[in-house]
Order: sequence, then C-alpha cells, then structure tokens
Amino acid sequence: MRDFSNDHSALTLNTATLGHNLDGYGAGWPVERMIDACTERGLGGIVFWRREIGNRAVEIGERVRASGMQVVGLCRTPFLVGPLAPPTRQQVMDDFHASIDMAAGLQAPVLTIVVGGVIEGSHSMTDSLKTVADIVAETLPYAAKAGVKLALEPLNPVYGGNRSCLVSVRDAVDMCEAIDDDHLGIAVDVYHVWWDTSLEAELKRTGPKRILGYHLCDWLADTTDVLLDRGMMGDGVADLKAIRKAVEDAGYVGPCEVEIFSANDWWKRDPGNVLDVMVERFRSVC
Amino acid sequence: MRDFSNDHSALTLNTATLGHNLDGYGAGWPVERMIDACTERGLGGIVFWRREIGNRAVEIGERVRASGMQVVGLCRTPFLVGPLAPPTRQQVMDDFHASIDMAAGLQAPVLTIVVGGVIEGSHSMTDSLKTVADIVAETLPYAAKAGVKLALEPLNPVYGGNRSCLVSVRDAVDMCEAIDDDHLGIAVDVYHVWWDTSLEAELKRTGPKRILGYHLCDWLADTTDVLLDRGMMGDGVADLKAIRKAVEDAGYVGPCEVEIFSANDWWKRDPGNVLDVMVERFRSVC
Repeated sequence: MRDFSNDHSALTLNTATLGHNLDGYGAGWPVERMIDACTERGLGGIVFWRREIGNRAVEIGERVRASGMQVVGLCRTPFLVGPLAPPTRQQVMDDFHASIDMAAGLQAPVLTIVVGGVIEGSHSMTDSLKTVADIVAETLPYAAKAGVKLALEPLNPVYGGNRSCLVSVRDAVDMCEAIDDDHLGIAVDVYHVWWDTSLEAELKRTGPKRILGYHLCDWLADTTDVLLDRGMMGDGVADLKAIRKAVEDAGYVGPCEVEIFSANDWWKRDPGNVLDVMVERFRSVC
Repeated sequence: MRDFSNDHSALTLNTATLGHNLDGYGAGWPVERMIDACTERGLGGIVFWRREIGNRAVEIGERVRASGMQVVGLCRTPFLVGPLAPPTRQQVMDDFHASIDMAAGLQAPVLTIVVGGVIEGSHSMTDSLKTVADIVAETLPYAAKAGVKLALEPLNPVYGGNRSCLVSVRDAVDMCEAIDDDHLGIAVDVYHVWWDTSLEAELKRTGPKRILGYHLCDWLADTTDVLLDRGMMGDGVADLKAIRKAVEDAGYVGPCEVEIFSANDWWKRDPGNVLDVMVERFRSVC
C-alpha cells in the first residue's frame, strides 16, 4: 500500500467537510480561501459541490490548477429517481446534463451520481435500479463527449428509501458490468461500505478501471443522525486500513477524498483546524 | 406461496408492536390482555420480551397455549459484544443463560440473538464477528439441553457500530455454516434485510432448517429515526411479497411475526386498533 505517513499528496478535500456555509453551518469561507488553505497544507486535490460553483466553473478550475492542485471531482447529479428527484424525467435529464457541463467546465474528471430512493409506489428496489440504469445508460454518451466519467456511489442501506436505491457495492458493480461503458464506474465511500464484508471480493471483481473514487470519514459507534453525524477518521469503528487495502488491492491508486458531514461537531470548528486534523489523521490512521 | 387472504393463523404478534408499556409508550396492557386480544383475532402465536415475563415464564407459556396459540419466540439475549454489552464476559454468559432459561420456561422454541456492535477499540467487524461466533458456539450445548434454538438476527447496517456487527444475511449464514449446529439458525426481519438484493440467493444457500423466524414490518421512505420509526406493512417501500417469496422459496413455512417499533405513530394508538390493522394488512399486502 502507499505510505501516507510521509506523503499526503493523494489527500483531497471534499468541501462538504467544511460545512458548505449553508443553513447556519460552516465558517463562511469562500471558494478561494478553501483552495488556498488546501494548497498551504500540501493537499493534492479538491472536490466541490455545485452550489459553490455557480457560473464560475472555468475560472475556479483554473485557479485550483494554478495553485498546483487538481479538481478531483464534482458532487453531484440530481437524484435520478425516487421521492427527492425532480418531478419529471425531462427535468432529471436537464439537470443531469447541467451537472456534466459544470464538471467539464471545472475539468473535473469525475461526477458523482447519487441515484435516489425507491420509486414511489413501486415497492421495488429492483425496478427502481432498472430505471436508474436506463437513465445512466442514456446519459453516458453526453458525459463521454464532455470528457467526464460518472461514478455510481452506493449509499448506506439506511438511505434506501429516499436517497439511494443503490445500497451495495455489489449492486453498483453489477450495474457497471451490465452497462459496460468506459465512462462509468463506482465511488467507494467508507461511510456507506464500512460494514460490507464482501467489499474486497466485489472490488476485485470489477477491477481498477471502474473504481473512480475513494471517500474517507469514519462511522461513529453511536450513530443516530444518519445524515449529518459522520466522524473524523480514527474517531469511529470503521476498519480504515482494511478498507483502503481492499481498494488498493483492486488496483486503485487515485485520490483519497475526505467527506465529513458533521453538523454538531466538525462544522462548528474553525475550518483551518479541521483541515489540520484531517491531514494528521490521514497520515496516522488511514 | 401460502395464501394469507383467507387464513392468518401464521400471524404472530411481537409484543414490541404494542409499545412495551415502557418509557411513556403503549397503552399499559398487561400480558394477559395481550394474549386475549390476539386470541380474539385468530392469531396463531405471540413473541414476548423478557421485561414482560419476569419470573412468570411457565405460567404465561401455559396461558398462551390454553388460549390455543403458541409462544413462538422470546426477545432476546443480551448484546454479546460491543459498547452496549454487559461489562464482563461472565455477565454476558450469565445473562445469555438466563434468557435461554426463560425461553425454556415459556416453551418458546426460539430465542433471538442480537449480537451487539463492533468491539470497542477493535475497529474490526471481522474480529468482532469471530468473538460472537465463539460465544454462540460455547452456549449452544446449554441451549440444546434446554430445547431452545438460537436465531442470529442480522440487523440493518445502520446498527453496525452499537447494536449488531452482524449486518447481513450473508454473514449470518456464514456464521451458521461455520458453527454447524442443529440449534443455530437465523431470523429474517424485513426492516433489516429489505434492501438486500442477495437475500433470495443467501436464503437458498442456507436452506429451511436454518430459517428460524420471519419478521414483518415496513421501511418508511423517509426514515430518520432508525430505532423507533418502523412502518406498518404497506406504508413503506419494502417489497413485502418478494421478501416472503424468497423466505418461502427457501422452504420456510413457519410463523410470520409482526414487530413494529413506532414511538410516534403506532405506539400512540389504541392497541386493539393496531392489532386490527395488523391483521388486515397481513391478509392484504403481505
């Protein structure tokens, strides 16, 4: 495995870790300050959310690269199906295309897909996954033309009803195998997969070409708020070294992206301190 | 599949559905009234929690059978490992034995095991599962002597940190195969497995002898309280008919046990009404 104790150039900030500056969370740092703070600490990359970019994708992408980092990815597509998706298929497709355009403007190589929950009234994970696969397959030519890869992110099963009917690496790999397109892969997020004892086998099955992202945080033992109570690496129960070994044994050598939603803890702290702890934990426990 | 529209003798009440009469929930019904209400509605069985039984196991078991029903099971063992388990191994074993004794007193054929979360400081699901397997294997002779089968219940992965490092049917089946004892099997609960697209294959792999229980409720699309916000069958997104087909295709023909923790909805209703709705939903949507 790569030795991060002496090198954290693989470390990438997902800006969600600093609280998004929304809904009363976060310290109000603008994009430029986040970029500078990551550069100062020797990070290799940054992942933005669309809300932060607006119509400045090209400008922000250039600024990141001028600072010596990469735009590693963009969060994210609209929910494609389920109760939180836009009301019509046309609106889903329009927003899906808009998210690809923004990733292309940033020169972000990867756009994350969070697929949305079980289709209302269907009572069927399987049927919902079929519709997701149809929408993704239909959109892949547009993504390929834009030079953007799409990463299916399986979420923790607790989100199956509303945010993602894709809840296991196995199902994500199956969908990739069925669609079989060079611009489609998966994102592996510790929060969503830490419990899955089949992770190593599933990642080996799909191989390095299809692993488009590796997201870090920790699962707190006493998790009750499943949306906004993620832990800093080392503070929870996930076997971070074993998960990274599974990802790297499957051939992944890309960025390690820290994504921590934490309304009551990390989002209340000084962002500079959060970044310092993040670097230290990445080097010591990941 | 069995046709429940004309026969609900397989229907079993898990008394948790009526709110336990604890912590301000439930209508205060004593055990006797619960038994009578189930009998009046033609249910075939009842599953108790230890807190309701005290030292009256034999008396209550006899009363259930005199009413024409069966004591289908008992909830449950102590947590065996993790942050919520009793502090010492000896205390775990003592309470494990006490729960077996109570099941035997009730003449309940099955005792449910909720294994407990990842062992503190271990950061390892795998090591925690090994310790669970050791404890279960050590206890099986005692259970066999008492005539009680032990049902490993995999919980939803959201509970992996604190309540159950056993979070998939696959892992539960693996543990049963490894221990290979006639008194060990699994319980399949809709709340915990509804998302699992490998359910059918895993149940076929283990076969009917090892399926010791089938628990019903529904997963509400907008689940946020993961402990006390379960849905009544038909109100959520789970594919109840597909899950039952998977269970029955694997050969299970036992009771169907309704277990709904619902602090803000069903526990606030009149228990008689809850039972009436439960019977109606069981016949129409399960």
